[in-house]
Amino acid sequence: MTTKASERVAYHNGRIVPEREVRVPFRDRGFKYGDAVFDTTRTFGHRIFKLEAHLDRLFRSLRYLRIDPGLSAAELRRITEEVVARNLPLLEPDEDYWVTQRVSRGLDPSDRDVFDQDGPTVIVECLPLPLRERASLYRDGLRVVVPSVRRAAPDVLSPRAKTNNYLNVIAGDLEVKALDPGAWAILLDARGNLAEGIGSNIFVVRDGRVATPREQLVLPGISRETVIELARETGIPAEERDLDLFDAYNADEAFLTSTSLCICPVRSINGVEVGGGRVPGPVTRRLTEAYCRLVDYDFVAQYLKRLPA
Amino acid sequence: MTTKASERVAYHNGRIVPEREVRVPFRDRGFKYGDAVFDTTRTFGHRIFKLEAHLDRLFRSLRYLRIDPGLSAAELRRITEEVVARNLPLLEPDEDYWVTQRVSRGLDPSDRDVFDQDGPTVIVECLPLPLRERASLYRDGLRVVVPSVRRAAPDVLSPRAKTNNYLNVIAGDLEVKALDPGAWAILLDARGNLAEGIGSNIFVVRDGRVATPREQLVLPGISRETVIELARETGIPAEERDLDLFDAYNADEAFLTSTSLCICPVRSINGVEVGGGRVPGPVTRRLTEAYCRLVDYDFVAQYLKRLPA
Amino acid sequence: MTTKASERVAYHNGRIVPEREVRVPFRDRGFKYGDAVFDTTRTFGHRIFKLEAHLDRLFRSLRYLRIDPGLSAAELRRITEEVVARNLPLLEPDEDYWVTQRVSRGLDPSDRDVFDQDGPTVIVECLPLPLRERASLYRDGLRVVVPSVRRAAPDVLSPRAKTNNYLNVIAGDLEVKALDPGAWAILLDARGNLAEGIGSNIFVVRDGRVATPREQLVLPGISRETVIELARETGIPAEERDLDLFDAYNADEAFLTSTSLCICPVRSINGVEVGGGRVPGPVTRRLTEAYCRLVDYDFVAQYLKRLPA
Amino acid sequence: MTTKASERVAYHNGRIVPEREVRVPFRDRGFKYGDAVFDTTRTFGHRIFKLEAHLDRLFRSLRYLRIDPGLSAAELRRITEEVVARNLPLLEPDEDYWVTQRVSRGLDPSDRDVFDQDGPTVIVECLPLPLRERASLYRDGLRVVVPSVRRAAPDVLSPRAKTNNYLNVIAGDLEVKALDPGAWAILLDARGNLAEGIGSNIFVVRDGRVATPREQLVLPGISRETVIELARETGIPAEERDLDLFDAYNADEAFLTSTSLCICPVRSINGVEVGGGRVPGPVTRRLTEAYCRLVDYDFVAQYLKRLPA
Amino acid sequence: MTTKASERVAYHNGRIVPEREVRVPFRDRGFKYGDAVFDTTRTFGHRIFKLEAHLDRLFRSLRYLRIDPGLSAAELRRITEEVVARNLPLLEPDEDYWVTQRVSRGLDPSDRDVFDQDGPTVIVECLPLPLRERASLYRDGLRVVVPSVRRAAPDVLSPRAKTNNYLNVIAGDLEVKALDPGAWAILLDARGNLAEGIGSNIFVVRDGRVATPREQLVLPGISRETVIELARETGIPAEERDLDLFDAYNADEAFLTSTSLCICPVRSINGVEVGGGRVPGPVTRRLTEAYCRLVDYDFVAQYLKRLPA
Amino acid sequence: MTTKASERVAYHNGRIVPEREVRVPFRDRGFKYGDAVFDTTRTFGHRIFKLEAHLDRLFRSLRYLRIDPGLSAAELRRITEEVVARNLPLLEPDEDYWVTQRVSRGLDPSDRDVFDQDGPTVIVECLPLPLRERASLYRDGLRVVVPSVRRAAPDVLSPRAKTNNYLNVIAGDLEVKALDPGAWAILLDARGNLAEGIGSNIFVVRDGRVATPREQLVLPGISRETVIELARETGIPAEERDLDLFDAYNADEAFLTSTSLCICPVRSINGVEVGGGRVPGPVTRRLTEAYCRLVDYDFVAQYLKRLPA
Repeated sequence: MTTKASERVAYHNGRIVPEREVRVPFRDRGFKYGDAVFDTTRTFGHRIFKLEAHLDRLFRSLRYLRIDPGLSAAELRRITEEVVARNLPLLEPDEDYWVTQRVSRGLDPSDRDVFDQDGPTVIVECLPLPLRERASLYRDGLRVVVPSVRRAAPDVLSPRAKTNNYLNVIAGDLEVKALDPGAWAILLDARGNLAEGIGSNIFVVRDGRVATPREQLVLPGISRETVIELARETGIPAEERDLDLFDAYNADEAFLTSTSLCICPVRSINGVEVGGGRVPGPVTRRLTEAYCRLVDYDFVAQYLKRLPA
Repeated sequence: MTTKASERVAYHNGRIVPEREVRVPFRDRGFKYGDAVFDTTRTFGHRIFKLEAHLDRLFRSLRYLRIDPGLSAAELRRITEEVVARNLPLLEPDEDYWVTQRVSRGLDPSDRDVFDQDGPTVIVECLPLPLRERASLYRDGLRVVVPSVRRAAPDVLSPRAKTNNYLNVIAGDLEVKALDPGAWAILLDARGNLAEGIGSNIFVVRDGRVATPREQLVLPGISRETVIELARETGIPAEERDLDLFDAYNADEAFLTSTSLCICPVRSINGVEVGGGRVPGPVTRRLTEAYCRLVDYDFVAQYLKRLPA
Repeated sequence: MTTKASERVAYHNGRIVPEREVRVPFRDRGFKYGDAVFDTTRTFGHRIFKLEAHLDRLFRSLRYLRIDPGLSAAELRRITEEVVARNLPLLEPDEDYWVTQRVSRGLDPSDRDVFDQDGPTVIVECLPLPLRERASLYRDGLRVVVPSVRRAAPDVLSPRAKTNNYLNVIAGDLEVKALDPGAWAILLDARGNLAEGIGSNIFVVRDGRVATPREQLVLPGISRETVIELARETGIPAEERDLDLFDAYNADEAFLTSTSLCICPVRSINGVEVGGGRVPGPVTRRLTEAYCRLVDYDFVAQYLKRLPA
Repeated sequence: MTTKASERVAYHNGRIVPEREVRVPFRDRGFKYGDAVFDTTRTFGHRIFKLEAHLDRLFRSLRYLRIDPGLSAAELRRITEEVVARNLPLLEPDEDYWVTQRVSRGLDPSDRDVFDQDGPTVIVECLPLPLRERASLYRDGLRVVVPSVRRAAPDVLSPRAKTNNYLNVIAGDLEVKALDPGAWAILLDARGNLAEGIGSNIFVVRDGRVATPREQLVLPGISRETVIELARETGIPAEERDLDLFDAYNADEAFLTSTSLCICPVRSINGVEVGGGRVPGPVTRRLTEAYCRLVDYDFVAQYLKRLPA
Repeated sequence: MTTKASERVAYHNGRIVPEREVRVPFRDRGFKYGDAVFDTTRTFGHRIFKLEAHLDRLFRSLRYLRIDPGLSAAELRRITEEVVARNLPLLEPDEDYWVTQRVSRGLDPSDRDVFDQDGPTVIVECLPLPLRERASLYRDGLRVVVPSVRRAAPDVLSPRAKTNNYLNVIAGDLEVKALDPGAWAILLDARGNLAEGIGSNIFVVRDGRVATPREQLVLPGISRETVIELARETGIPAEERDLDLFDAYNADEAFLTSTSLCICPVRSINGVEVGGGRVPGPVTRRLTEAYCRLVDYDFVAQYLKRLPA
Repeated sequence: MTTKASERVAYHNGRIVPEREVRVPFRDRGFKYGDAVFDTTRTFGHRIFKLEAHLDRLFRSLRYLRIDPGLSAAELRRITEEVVARNLPLLEPDEDYWVTQRVSRGLDPSDRDVFDQDGPTVIVECLPLPLRERASLYRDGLRVVVPSVRRAAPDVLSPRAKTNNYLNVIAGDLEVKALDPGAWAILLDARGNLAEGIGSNIFVVRDGRVATPREQLVLPGISRETVIELARETGIPAEERDLDLFDAYNADEAFLTSTSLCICPVRSINGVEVGGGRVPGPVTRRLTEAYCRLVDYDFVAQYLKRLPA
C-alpha cells in the first residue's frame, strides 16, 4: 500500500475514518445478498462531476428497492464533498478520483445486537482512477465482445437501478475475458438488442447520427446522458432505440461511455472492425472534444500521457 | 446482544475469531457486487445435516462463477465442523444452528494493498435458528403470495447457483410483504411457472402425488431433494415438472421446504385456501414424520414448543 | 330494487323494453364464449360524453372479431341517445349514467330456432355510476397492486378490442383483491411493462411529464386519449412508452383513467407511496381541472359530495 | 324449431324448465365478461359418459377462478342425471346428447335487485350431437390448419380451465375458416408448439407411438385422457410432449379428440397430407375400436350412417 | 427457351458470359448453406432504379456476414450497368428487368482445387419482370394471409440482411399457398407484430396516416423507403411502428411494396376485406402516382396492359 | 487438385459424372434461397454407416419443406452405394469418406427453359474426411465457445430439418472463430439452453450420467442417437433434457458428436476446463470404445495417426 492510499479517508455511518478501517459486518445484507445500491461519479481536475445527477439516480435506486438511507440527498452531497476535499491532497495534480456513495439495507434485526449497528450502512469513498491501466484504450480503441449471457429484464430486476447485484454482467464479462482478457463485454438484452456492460453504455454512429439503447433496458449512465446532450448541442442527431449486431457491424463508429472513460472509442465488435478500425472516428472525436470542453479538462490527454514510452 | 451471542465464533480467512469481529472490507467484491456464493445447512439436535451435499452444491456455485475458494471441500468441511463444535456449547439443548459457508471473490487487485488481503474471502459461521419467530407457521400454515416479479432465467443468472445476488427474489418479497407482512413470496419463472422464494422451494400435492418445479429453474434445495427421496421411499410418487397457479389453486396440499423449515405446510396461495385450509394435510404429515425420522429429531415439536401459551 | 331501477329501460334487438326484462338465451355465444364486444361511455351532468369516439372503438372491436352488428354506427348512436333520454328522468340532477352498447355474435345456427332469434344480440343500456362507492378514492387516492398474471399479448387477443373476455384481467384482480379488497389491479404485459386494469389505464408523472403505456398493448381508453390531449393543450408533455415498476416507484404522481373515474389519483403502487403519498399531485390536479372544464362538469365534486360525513 | 327441441328442458338456478325459457340477465357476469366456466360430456347410446371426471374438471375450473357454484359435485351430478333423463325421450334411439353444466359468477351486487337474482348462475342442459353435419369427417378425415394466433399461456389464463372466454381460440378459428370454411383450427402455444383447437385436442402417431401436447398448456380433454389410457391398455406407447409442425408434417397418422368426435382422423395439416392421406391410419383405427368397446357403442357408425347417399 | 432468353448474359467471377452457362460448383457455400447475400433492383423504362442504395444495402449484408466480395461498390456498379446495357436490347420497349447482384462466400478451402475457384462467387444478372403473371394484382388487389410461422428475430439472423437463407419466409409461404395458391404470405415477428413476406414489405393506412413495421425487424426495402419518403413529400404522415392484426383488420387501406411491385394494393388480410375491399384506396393511389412520377414511368399501366382481354 | 480428387465422381440429376463437373444453375432455388436439404453419413473402413437412418432423416427434412425429390429412398440408397463404390478406389485404406445426398427444389418455373432443367436438383457425392486437420482434437479436446446468437426456434424453422439454411449457426460460428479460430461454437436455443453447433451435438456427463439437449430443439444427429443407444447398452444412464451453462461448467466430462467426429472430447467450455481438463474422461472413453466396436473401426486411431510427429 502506498503511503497515500493508507491515508485515504471515507465516510462510514456517521464518521469519517481511514478508508482501510471501513469494514462491514459479514451479516450486512449488502454482503449477504448484495441488498444495496451505489452510485459513482468522478472528478475532473479535482472537481466533482454532476454530483447532483448522480445523487438523484442513487435515490431512484434506493426508492426502487425501498431502502431508506436515513440521510437526505443534501446531507449525502455535503458528506461527499467533504470526503473528496479531505482526499484530494493525496492526488497528483493530473490524477483524479472515482467518488462513490454506497447504501446497503444494513443488518437483519436479529443481527443488529451482535454487530452493534442499526439502520442502513452508508459509505462515501474515493478511489484514484486507473489511468495507467486504461491509457492504451484511447490509442487503440476498445475490443467489445458480446457474450451469450443476456441482461436481466425489468421484470426480473430493473437495469436502471444501480445495485450491488452485478453477477449478471459479471457472468457475461467472465465469458468474454476467458477468450480475450483485454476485451470489454456488452450484453444483449432479453430480446437480443445491445444493452450494456459492467458500468458502461454503448453508442453506435451511422451516417452522422448517434444511437444508444433505450434507457428502460440499461443503466441510464450520466456520461451517456451527457453525450446525448452534447450531441444535440453540437448538431449531431442522437436517439435512443433498439440496436442489434447488424447495427454494430455496420456502424461507422462506436464508443462506450462510463464514469471513468467518459467517451472511449471502440475498435471492434466481436472481431469486426468498426468503420475500418481507425479510432476515434470523426463523430466520436467531436463528442470527445465537446465533453472535454464541458468538463473543462482534457481527460484523453490525462489517459494518454500515461502510455508507456 | 446476549452474552451468548457475543461469544459466538466464526472462521474468517484462516482464523477462528469472535463472530462480531468478522467484518469485510467495503471494497470486497462480495459487498460491492454480491460477487460471492454461500451455502447453509442446519443442525438437528446439534448434529450437522448433510454437510457433504451442501459443500458439493457450494462448489458447483463456485465453479459456475469461476471463483477459486483456495480451500478444498475437505478443508471446508473440517473448518465447518470445528466452528460448529466451538459454538454448540452456547446453545440450549433444544436449540439448533444455521451453519453457513461464504466465499467471495475477494478484493480487486488494486484494493488488495489497502486492506491487506489477497485471495477470496472465506467465512464459516453459525446462527441460531429463529425457532420462536416461525413457530406459528407449523400451527397455522404459510400464506404464500406470488408477486409480479419473475425469477431470473438461466441465461441471465442460473438459479441453481446460490449466490449473494438476492435482489431478484428480494424485490418479489418486498412486493408481497408490503401487502401482507407475514406472507411468503414464491416467484414465477420467466415462462409463468411456479419457481421459488427466498431460500425456499415449493411442493404441491394432488391425488396423492407430490410435485415441485424443475431443478434447472430453481435452487436445488437439499431439503427439497431430501423430501423427494423420502417421498419415493415412502411410496409417494414425486416428480419435478412445470407447475403453475392452476396447480396451486387445485392442490390438495402444498408445502415449502427450506433448510430451517425442513417441511412447513402452506395454508393459502394468493388467498386461495389449499385443500380446504386444514394444515398439515395427510401427505405433508407423512413426509414430515419421515423427515423427523431421517434426522432423528422432531423439528416440528422444536418449533411448536415455542408457541406463546 | 328501487322503484327507479325498476323503471329503467334498455334497447334489446330492435325494441326498447324494461331493463329487467333484457335476458339473453343461455346459448347466446356472448354467454357461452364471451364472443361479444361492448363499449361504455358516461354522462356528465346528463350529457353523453364522446359518444362518436366510443362507437368508433366499438366498430373497431367488431371488425377485429368479424362480428356484423346489423346496425350502422349512426343507428346505434340514435338508439343510444334515445335510451339515455328515456332513462335520464330517473336520475337525481347530480347523478350520472354509464351508457353501454353490447353486441354479441348471437346464437349458433342450430340454436336459432329454439330461441327464435337470428343475427347478433344488440343491447344498449344505462346504469347509474357508483358515485358513493368510489367517493373516497378521490380523497384518499387509489391503492394499485400489480398481480402476477400477465396481460394477454396482441397475438393471443388484442387488448385494443373491448371484448366480453375479461377473465385475464379478472384473474389478476382476484389475486389483488384477495390481499387487499380495496386495491385496484394493474397488470404487466408479456414483456413486464405496466399495462392496464379492468377498464382502467395508468399514467405516471415524472419531472412534469406524463406517460402511459403504448396503445398497442392496452385498451385505448377514451379517457386516456382525452387526458393525453388535455395534457398537450395544457403544455404538459405527454407520451406513450414502455413503463415498468421502476417508473412506478419513482413517479412523482400517478393516476388512473377510466370512463367512470375520468382521472383518479393513485396513492400507492405495490405499497410504495407515490410522490410522498399526497394526492392529488399538482399535475394530476391540473389535468383534472382541465378535464372538468372540457366536460363542463365537476366530476370530482360529484364524487366527493357523497363522502360520509 | 322442431317440436322435440321445443320440449327440451334444462336446469336453471334451482328449477327444471323448458330450455327455451332459460335466459340470463344481460348483466350476468357470464355475459358481460365471460366470467363463467362450463363442462360438457356426451351420451353414448343414451348413457352419460364419465360424468364424474367431467364434474371434477368443472370444479377445478371453478376453483381456479374462485367461483362458488353453491352446489356440491354430488348435487350437480344428480341434477345432470335428471335433466338427461327428462330429455332422453326426445331423441331417436341412434341419437345422442351433449350434456353441459354451466356456472357463471352471477350478477354484480349492484345488479342483483334489478334482476332479482343472487349468487351464481347454474345451468344444466342437453343438446343433440351434430351427427349429420360431422358425418363426412369420419370418411374424409379432418383438414387441420394452424392459424397465426397463439394459444394463451398459463400466466395469462390457464388453458386447463374450461371457461367462457373462448375468443383466443375463436380468433384462430376465424382466420382458418376464412380460408377454408371446412377446416379445423389447431393453435400453437406461446413457444410455437402444437396446442389445441376449439374444444379439441390433437394427437400425432409416429412409428407406432402416439403423442399429444402436454396437459399444462391445453385443456385436459376427457377424451384425450381416455385415448391415452386406451393406448396404454392396448400396448401403444403414449406420451405427452412438445410437438411442433415438424412432427405434424412427418406424422404417420394424426387425429383429434373431443367430447363429440371422440376420435376423428386428420387427413391433412396445413395442406400436407398426413401419412399419405389415407384415413384412418392403423393406430387411429385400433384406438377408435378400443374407444367403441369402452363406451360399448359404435360412434363411428353413428356418424357414418348419416352420410348422404 | 425463347431466343431472347438464350441470349441473356450475366457477370460471373470476372467475365460476362451467357446466363445459361452461369453455374456454381455444388460445393459453393452459397449452395450448401445459403452462405451468400444478394440484392435486387429493377429498371423502369430501361433505367436502373436506385442502384446506389441497393449496393449500399448489399454491402451492409456482406459486412453483417463478414463476406469479402473482392470488389468495391463502384466496381459492382460498373459491372451491373454493363450487364444491364448488354441485356436491354433483348427487351420489348415496355418490358423491364429485375437486376441482381449475388455474392457467396465461395468454396471451402478444401474444395477450391477441385473446382478451380478461389474467393467469393460474384454474379450479376438480369431477369424480365413477371408483368403478365402479376397484372391482375393491380386490378384485384393482393390477398394477404398470415401463416403460423414467425419471422426470425435479430438475435437469430437479422432480417435486415438480404441473405440466401429464405427458408423461414418460404415455410410461411408454403403454409399460405397450400390454402390459397394466389395469396401472399406476411409473417408476424417473434412478438406477434406484422413483419414481412418474401421480398415484400407491408403498409397499413388509417385515418390518412401510413405505417409500416420497424426497420430492425424486417428487410429495409428500398421501395419501402421510397414510399416513406414520397409520403412525407406528399404531406402524408408516415411512421415505422409495431403493427398487429388489429391494425390490419381495421386499416382503411393496405399495400405491399417490393422491387417488382413498387406499390400494390391489398384487398384482404386473412380474408378480412380491407377498407371495404375497394382497391386501390385513395392514399394508395396518391402514393402510387407519386411513385410513377418519381421513376418517370407508369408501372401500373405496364402491368395492367398485360391483363387478358 | 490431386489426381485422385480430379477423378471423384458424383450423381447429378440422373447421371454419374466427374464431381468437378457438377455445377448448379445460379438460379437454382438451392443457391438463391438455400431452398434445399441434405444429409451426410460417413464410411468406416470404407463401409457406409447407417445409410438407412440418414435417408429416413433426409426424407423427413424433405417432407417438412414439401420438396418432392422425385426418387424413392430405395433409389437414393442404390445411387449412394454406387457413388461410394465408384469413389472408394481413390482412397487410401485408412481414409474414409463423407457421403452426402443433396436435394434442392430446383428452378422456379420461369427459369427452367433457360437452364434446361425441370424438377428438383439431386446430387449424391463423397468427400474425404479431414482427418489430418482434426487429428489434434482427439489428443487435446475441443474448445467449445457459446456465442451470443441464438439457435432458431421450431416456429421459425425447425432445427430438426437438415436444410441448406445454415446462416444462423454460421453467424454464431463467425462470432466464436473471430476470438478463437480453433474453437467450436455451440449455440443456445431461444430459452437459453444449450442447443447445437454446425453439424454437431453436445453431451455433458455428470455423476456417471450422460445428457444431451432435447431432440425437438436440435438436429437429431445419427451419431447423437447412436451414442444414446450405446450408453444405454453399456449401462450408462442417458437422457435428453434442458441443459444450460450451469450444467456445462459443472460437467465431469463433455463431448461433441457429429458424423465425422463420431465422439470427440471437449476440453473447455467458454474457457472453463471441463472435469479438470483431462480428455477424454472415463465415460467418454467408454462410449468411444463402444462406438469403435459398433462400427468395427478405430476412428480415434484413424485421426491420431495423422498427428504431426
